Amino acid sequence: MPRSVAAHRGAVVELLTRQAARKGTEELPLLDAIGRALAADLRAPVSLPPFANSQMDGFAVFSADIPDGGAELRVGAPVPAGARPAALERGFAVPIMTGAMLPKGADAVVPIERAVPSVFPAAGAVDALVRLPATAPGTFVRDAGSDIAEGALALAAGTSLGPAQLGLLAALGLTSVEVRSPLRVLLVTTGDEVVEPGNPLVTGKIYDSNGTLLEASMRQAGLEVVRNGISDDDPAGLLDVLRKHTDNGSAVDLVVTTGGVSKGAYEVVRQAMAGEDVEFVPVAMQPGGPQGIGTFNDVPFLGFPGNPVSCLVSFEMFLRPALSEVLGAPRPRQMLPARLAEPLTSPKGKHQVRRGIIENGVVRLEGGAGSHLVHALARSNALIQVPADVTELQAGDEVEVWVL
Amino acid sequence: MPRSVAAHRGAVVELLTRQAARKGTEELPLLDAIGRALAADLRAPVSLPPFANSQMDGFAVFSADIPDGGAELRVGAPVPAGARPAALERGFAVPIMTGAMLPKGADAVVPIERAVPSVFPAAGAVDALVRLPATAPGTFVRDAGSDIAEGALALAAGTSLGPAQLGLLAALGLTSVEVRSPLRVLLVTTGDEVVEPGNPLVTGKIYDSNGTLLEASMRQAGLEVVRNGISDDDPAGLLDVLRKHTDNGSAVDLVVTTGGVSKGAYEVVRQAMAGEDVEFVPVAMQPGGPQGIGTFNDVPFLGFPGNPVSCLVSFEMFLRPALSEVLGAPRPRQMLPARLAEPLTSPKGKHQVRRGIIENGVVRLEGGAGSHLVHALARSNALIQVPADVTELQAGDEVEVWVL
Repeated sequence: MPRSVAAHRGAVVELLTRQAARKGTEELPLLDAIGRALAADLRAPVSLPPFANSQMDGFAVFSADIPDGGAELRVGAPVPAGARPAALERGFAVPIMTGAMLPKGADAVVPIERAVPSVFPAAGAVDALVRLPATAPGTFVRDAGSDIAEGALALAAGTSLGPAQLGLLAALGLTSVEVRSPLRVLLVTTGDEVVEPGNPLVTGKIYDSNGTLLEASMRQAGLEVVRNGISDDDPAGLLDVLRKHTDNGSAVDLVVTTGGVSKGAYEVVRQAMAGEDVEFVPVAMQPGGPQGIGTFNDVPFLGFPGNPVSCLVSFEMFLRPALSEVLGAPRPRQMLPARLAEPLTSPKGKHQVRRGIIENGVVRLEGGAGSHLVHALARSNALIQVPADVTELQAGDEVEVWVL
Repeated sequence: MPRSVAAHRGAVVELLTRQAARKGTEELPLLDAIGRALAADLRAPVSLPPFANSQMDGFAVFSADIPDGGAELRVGAPVPAGARPAALERGFAVPIMTGAMLPKGADAVVPIERAVPSVFPAAGAVDALVRLPATAPGTFVRDAGSDIAEGALALAAGTSLGPAQLGLLAALGLTSVEVRSPLRVLLVTTGDEVVEPGNPLVTGKIYDSNGTLLEASMRQAGLEVVRNGISDDDPAGLLDVLRKHTDNGSAVDLVVTTGGVSKGAYEVVRQAMAGEDVEFVPVAMQPGGPQGIGTFNDVPFLGFPGNPVSCLVSFEMFLRPALSEVLGAPRPRQMLPARLAEPLTSPKGKHQVRRGIIENGVVRLEGGAGSHLVHALARSNALIQVPADVTELQAGDEVEVWVL
């Protein structure tokens, strides 16, 4: 009985959880922390805004100074942004700029457009008057702490740090942030048929795209990637490579191989892992069904299948979501409902992952189900999820898509 | 009459188009090109797959050798992946692994599961026989060039290069790729009230979050960012900074300032740009209405408003889409329809951009309309677009959201 997608993802989460717990944290300048996960809950060291300030260019007033019919007030010294203003005298209105600190005694701002005259007095003008309408207390005032109060939770541990989160940390006066240290992964592509790009292509061989595809995906997801070229179909050679990178204990946190996990006659990863704590399980998924999982030399081990699309789907369905869940980064893929532009069929009992292009809530297929179609994959921006119990869908049917 | 969002975006596109045309291209190793835009159309130097190969572990056969009722065939020497097989003799079936090259003379593959016996003969076995069902020509064969034919367009100029696109380039045997050189932007935050994070916060002042927020956004969008600290509200000082970075002609390709663009009494960017080829236009958008645009010292110039949310919205609504359109990278934001979880109101005649969290096609608001709410922004993952002619929306109404 094949394992469900959810069960296998759970197994990958469990595998990574133990490893992640061993990893430490590091302090980085804000802009070096883009895409990283916050190490611990972070509480606001100051309130935002730090003080009550004006939301508009206008006049700061004490609202009780203006009766229902409006009033004429004397114009005091203006408050530019950044200044610490004197207290407001009763019966005065003071010109105030957006973001400037509200003077003590003021409790509202009347926008300049509602004043008569609707311009600020020239610098140096004396005894100027302004007519203002009545205004409720608090109008156009941004209260201190109204965005976040000092001591409140600003960002939770595990938050993925993008521009807005880093902007918040800067607004709180911080210049660096403690983030989780990245996992270091050894990525080994295998296969007698695979040639490193840039070399001549002998008949019967293909170029290795898995190395580039997965290293790029892993880097985007915040992993540090160690490569050791392509391993051929000799199990002893593969074992040498894996031992070299795992013997120091802490050298790598995770091993990912591609290829050699199905039931053919030459399955190098299966052969190399015989006797290791690694199992090869059929997952009820297409593509990417055969998966290896376990530990090698005390290091978590994942064996992805060898076709490029299977590799990408394995990464997106298992490793990437597990990283999001365990570490907090990368941010999970956006999952959304979309309408199919065309019908599709899917094998009974298998969760099918098709590639497609989503636009305005409608998704159309790119390429067939074949897991070798890397050009079709390169045109896609979404993975279409067809649950295991669905065998047929019509144009217009709703499906879940993951946006790449 | 304020300018529409679309009209202002068009103006930014025009401004960048001239500048981008002056920029060159550069050749990068594949993994250094993540997120960059392809410089020129790229045609496939080889076909994918390069040769007809098997989609399954099974037996390669000449389909005409098997009549409707099936046939018993002699088993030939197996074809592992990566090997160049001998031609198939008539009346033979040869064991073939997934991805292995189809022997000359073979035109179909029968999966091992459908063979009797359904195992491959042991190595060295002689005179083995296998019973196979009839099969149509082409079955389980991946034809040469079925993913992409040699000479066909693999990726169009301007394609943003992610893992799948780089994986395709590797599959085509390439190790490097020509991409468009990044634009270099001078980012200057302004304001007497703004203090660099890490310094003491004097009463009346706030920390600069715009610098971090925008630099992170710009880096993610592939721009090279030059910073020169915070400029205060002295126009002469700001002009000195801008001249220093633009006098060499090619030092920077774009200048972006924050703050000092509205109609208050102390608007440093407006004051500094008096007499320059820069106009300050009201855009019918909230937040981010006041915008500066033009050229300074022959360099394209954009003046964003000073509130953090206005800065982010200005970047996301104008600069980022213009970069996508002009350069091909970054990839445009995913735009999708979603249902509002709650009602909202929007000012008449203004395109409102609210922040929110989208999940499973439903979007809920984070924070109010206030453009200073950077903590609410940091909780959001989407921008909600409320068109200028809409003043009220109900829970359940459909809106367009942009996924951040």
